[in-house]
Amino acid sequence: MSIRVGIIGISGYGGGEAMRLVAGHPSFELVYAAGEGSAGSRLVDRFPGAPAKLADLVIEKWDPTALPRLDVLFASLPTGASADALARVPKDVKIVDIGGDHRWVEGWTYGLADVWPAQIKGKTRVANPGCFPAATLTALAPLLADKLIEPGNIVVDVKTGVSGAGRGGGNSKFGYAEVNEDLAPYGLLKHAHMPEIAKTIERLSGEGSAGGLVFTPHLVPMTRGILATIYCRGRATTEQCFDAAKRFYGGRAFVRVSDKPPHTKWATGSNFAFVSYAADPDRNLVIAMGVVDNLGKGAAGQAVQNANLICGLPETAGLDGAPVWP
Amino acid sequence: MSIRVGIIGISGYGGGEAMRLVAGHPSFELVYAAGEGSAGSRLVDRFPGAPAKLADLVIEKWDPTALPRLDVLFASLPTGASADALARVPKDVKIVDIGGDHRWVEGWTYGLADVWPAQIKGKTRVANPGCFPAATLTALAPLLADKLIEPGNIVVDVKTGVSGAGRGGGNSKFGYAEVNEDLAPYGLLKHAHMPEIAKTIERLSGEGSAGGLVFTPHLVPMTRGILATIYCRGRATTEQCFDAAKRFYGGRAFVRVSDKPPHTKWATGSNFAFVSYAADPDRNLVIAMGVVDNLGKGAAGQAVQNANLICGLPETAGLDGAPVWP
Amino acid sequence: MSIRVGIIGISGYGGGEAMRLVAGHPSFELVYAAGEGSAGSRLVDRFPGAPAKLADLVIEKWDPTALPRLDVLFASLPTGASADALARVPKDVKIVDIGGDHRWVEGWTYGLADVWPAQIKGKTRVANPGCFPAATLTALAPLLADKLIEPGNIVVDVKTGVSGAGRGGGNSKFGYAEVNEDLAPYGLLKHAHMPEIAKTIERLSGEGSAGGLVFTPHLVPMTRGILATIYCRGRATTEQCFDAAKRFYGGRAFVRVSDKPPHTKWATGSNFAFVSYAADPDRNLVIAMGVVDNLGKGAAGQAVQNANLICGLPETAGLDGAPVWP
Amino acid sequence: MSIRVGIIGISGYGGGEAMRLVAGHPSFELVYAAGEGSAGSRLVDRFPGAPAKLADLVIEKWDPTALPRLDVLFASLPTGASADALARVPKDVKIVDIGGDHRWVEGWTYGLADVWPAQIKGKTRVANPGCFPAATLTALAPLLADKLIEPGNIVVDVKTGVSGAGRGGGNSKFGYAEVNEDLAPYGLLKHAHMPEIAKTIERLSGEGSAGGLVFTPHLVPMTRGILATIYCRGRATTEQCFDAAKRFYGGRAFVRVSDKPPHTKWATGSNFAFVSYAADPDRNLVIAMGVVDNLGKGAAGQAVQNANLICGLPETAGLDGAPVWP
Repeated sequence: MSIRVGIIGISGYGGGEAMRLVAGHPSFELVYAAGEGSAGSRLVDRFPGAPAKLADLVIEKWDPTALPRLDVLFASLPTGASADALARVPKDVKIVDIGGDHRWVEGWTYGLADVWPAQIKGKTRVANPGCFPAATLTALAPLLADKLIEPGNIVVDVKTGVSGAGRGGGNSKFGYAEVNEDLAPYGLLKHAHMPEIAKTIERLSGEGSAGGLVFTPHLVPMTRGILATIYCRGRATTEQCFDAAKRFYGGRAFVRVSDKPPHTKWATGSNFAFVSYAADPDRNLVIAMGVVDNLGKGAAGQAVQNANLICGLPETAGLDGAPVWP
Repeated sequence: MSIRVGIIGISGYGGGEAMRLVAGHPSFELVYAAGEGSAGSRLVDRFPGAPAKLADLVIEKWDPTALPRLDVLFASLPTGASADALARVPKDVKIVDIGGDHRWVEGWTYGLADVWPAQIKGKTRVANPGCFPAATLTALAPLLADKLIEPGNIVVDVKTGVSGAGRGGGNSKFGYAEVNEDLAPYGLLKHAHMPEIAKTIERLSGEGSAGGLVFTPHLVPMTRGILATIYCRGRATTEQCFDAAKRFYGGRAFVRVSDKPPHTKWATGSNFAFVSYAADPDRNLVIAMGVVDNLGKGAAGQAVQNANLICGLPETAGLDGAPVWP
Repeated sequence: MSIRVGIIGISGYGGGEAMRLVAGHPSFELVYAAGEGSAGSRLVDRFPGAPAKLADLVIEKWDPTALPRLDVLFASLPTGASADALARVPKDVKIVDIGGDHRWVEGWTYGLADVWPAQIKGKTRVANPGCFPAATLTALAPLLADKLIEPGNIVVDVKTGVSGAGRGGGNSKFGYAEVNEDLAPYGLLKHAHMPEIAKTIERLSGEGSAGGLVFTPHLVPMTRGILATIYCRGRATTEQCFDAAKRFYGGRAFVRVSDKPPHTKWATGSNFAFVSYAADPDRNLVIAMGVVDNLGKGAAGQAVQNANLICGLPETAGLDGAPVWP
Repeated sequence: MSIRVGIIGISGYGGGEAMRLVAGHPSFELVYAAGEGSAGSRLVDRFPGAPAKLADLVIEKWDPTALPRLDVLFASLPTGASADALARVPKDVKIVDIGGDHRWVEGWTYGLADVWPAQIKGKTRVANPGCFPAATLTALAPLLADKLIEPGNIVVDVKTGVSGAGRGGGNSKFGYAEVNEDLAPYGLLKHAHMPEIAKTIERLSGEGSAGGLVFTPHLVPMTRGILATIYCRGRATTEQCFDAAKRFYGGRAFVRVSDKPPHTKWATGSNFAFVSYAADPDRNLVIAMGVVDNLGKGAAGQAVQNANLICGLPETAGLDGAPVWP
């Protein structure tokens, strides 16, 4: 029997990717889609390549009081918008919030699915990690678990493709003519994802303060992909880092430990995360690297993985497509 | 029972895409892969995101006398290389040649799958159309079938992403620094795909000569995608063109008739072709447009579709993934 | 003594390029800049790489009644905006209108500078050609002058970078995430530049009707550059076309006749146009190709060339910089 | 009287940019060009947009015993090739080596022109800094001079466009299809530019050891541009960092201190460096950012600046062009 799925925010890039993954999922059936700008149009008007079975589904204006029967709801709304939007969703509808409002919030489970799958199983309110945290924390988790690095002294230099800025933009600073052949840092010392990362580092390390966290995002001229290059202090060897990661992720489907520095293109269109390490004990230095597709593991891919865990399905259901390369 | 599949030329972009599609196919099992530069390495070394079940498959040096038992073989070799390479493949192995050597050649069926599916069913030697012909002919077929345009007076202006040039290149003219922010025509009046297109136009129109065919390819700074903008002479209205296309492709899974000019990104990663039309009878003008992913419908996607037809499977098996967007 | 120059529309891409060229001009001095969104800010706030001598110039709100003493005014406004904006500019201020409102309009000279320099000299109101016409007409002019092609039967397939859409946009359809890895035609059978091209073809050919003109623009994922691939009917040989072009542009500084198909990158940042030809008399076919930088020869470069002609300066003053490559 | 200039390595991207800058220089005259693959062809065959006055200059095979009379020679050769190539150049020919062989080598002056102009004046053998060091050291110099950061504890995360890899490549890993939509780190813990940066940090700080230096380059899908994001330890405030930079570069032409995080596109085609800072004394953290065009300030631009200093010309001669934007 199929699981009835809805998506809010289907007009955006994250919502669109959720649509693609749900459409290819063996147990999910998309029965409801809500959007802002696109309300009233059919899915195929918005996504000319929408699967035939979904082509004529009409996108609704969001109204939590007039939902069809749903088992799972994916919410892909701008930060600040989902707290209100989801408040009145019936309790028996399971929610995965791809947006930023419910991370480490009372009543919600933080859905870092490759790290804490057991805690997510059977939950009904799961907050998907942000795209930067997904890349960063997946790389750091094994090092923190094995206490190979100092949790209070971590410098995260992340680089992201432009789809991470969302679709609403329409600002010329995200326009092709200006982003192409350009690269810049932004949000120095105050990016919105910092507290989420700091909080999770504390949980992963079991230690009190990640107050020394430094986090600098950069906008890169590409559509998809995130790379986190993470500079840590620790006396571990490269081999110890790899051993820790291989143990930590042994048997896990979506994290690949790569002996070469990872490329963002390796993950495009998939739910994979690639992690790698380089260390120099003489310099008290460990470099961790994490790569994800910001719309895959960084958004809709991890959301489907969380929904699988919630629903008691195999974790990989609907997520076993290989990346699109090149 | 699964169908045992092999791929030759797996190091290239077309071969890699075939691997991705075969891996996700419900009835195919990849049991053999051959490559040139990559022989001896495992699939996962070459494709870091290869599915777990294929990760350890070792890429072989091609030897047609030492094949495992195969039902279907996909060949993705440079033009000129497949005639020899495939000559000694056992007769009971069905072949789809993605390369250029067997198109409209005696003993081979021309695999324009959306147009001539019945002729392909049950065949054992199928020559996949070239990427430019796939985009061009899919758009033209309904117009030629309905005699809405003059078959001897067609100007094809095609634009392709860079992966169409293959991977062997390594020439700085395909290097990022020079292709980026650049655009140029090439192969004027003599591109290798011209005879294939001319021949197929003759078959589609049932008329003798497509000698007036003009075909100009352009290299565009993108990885995937082909757009053919085709200028024809005819007195049809726009509506007649759309009607012809909707009738011609009614019930067909992979060709979408779009009332808006098609975008290459609509097809990325999929086996879709998008066609559209604009006509001005007063000027004796019909413009046909066709879009494909050059590695999808233009290569591996259509090859899998042909293999489905050959094997008596549903035409859409393994090909129902939605395009990756954006 | 320097020539006092003003620019309206300096916030846009065309206006910005005019600023760059004026700044490097040996006889021009930028004394006035007006913009919409940027009014009130200094040039260096808008262009972090503005030359030191211009850095502190404050961008004004446009007011034609409160202009400083100006010799030349460049107007780079959206189509529809310059007719009004320029109506009250004092008669003794020479104007080059980069925008679309005054092309082939009474009282204005059409500034196709490489073709009709003598007619532009000493004029005070010059309408710069559009970017598509600049690429198209420069390639066609020698063929029309020598009557090598039929003026009433011309198919223009043009491809443009995204900066041609201007900066105001802010529409997600010009956003990086959607334009990147995408390509599409637009404005079929009705693009705004068609009448301008048709009119100029008539002038160049001395014949009445270019009613058969077909013009199809395409948006290409690059910031700068236009390529026009033009399909004509005629019995000329390739050699005759090249001869015509070499004669026509002999001694002219900015048009280069290339024996290889031209690349848009050859022109980036310069006022060059590159033209080339391929013909097949047996098929009654002549293909002409023209390449420009849409912000150079397609906008600000040609505008400065026109201003040089107006002011009696050497045509190449301030325009002799080589293209930026790669 | 003009200064007679030669360029070796004109086929490469750095040599080509040197050609462009020399061509636009008021006192330099290019009289000699040598190249490998391009020997025997004219400059215009290699650079279709070469200035008219240089178009017919024939590129020679390098032979230091058969040079014409030269005042200045620019060498833009791969690392490892210039030591030999330049050994027999006559002593009275001044050399700026853009390549890597003579940096901090006896008999050569290290040409960090914005920092040490006085030491470069009148020298005859100058080693141009590498492109990564140019971006990194320009940002760090004021902080080191004012002892605002610890010189032995610096993490440099640099991101570069693809032209930095040079043109010889032809490797598919620099091919468009693979670099586009991709991003990856490389050369971890052992990049060739590390010793040069460490050495210069020691000189700038007057302290013995930069042994704690961490340096990680990343390949970004763009043609030109370098951004260095540099994580330092120190108790300075953001304001102190900006004050230091404004004092250090006060009156200097090519370094701009930006209060916003710098974009690589701001520098494209120019000799500018943009630097910016963000500090948090509570976390003992100073972030320095430096942006250059890798072919401008990172190669040919700085080389011309060095040649100006050598020849006693104004430092900005031939370098006052504004960046090309967008």
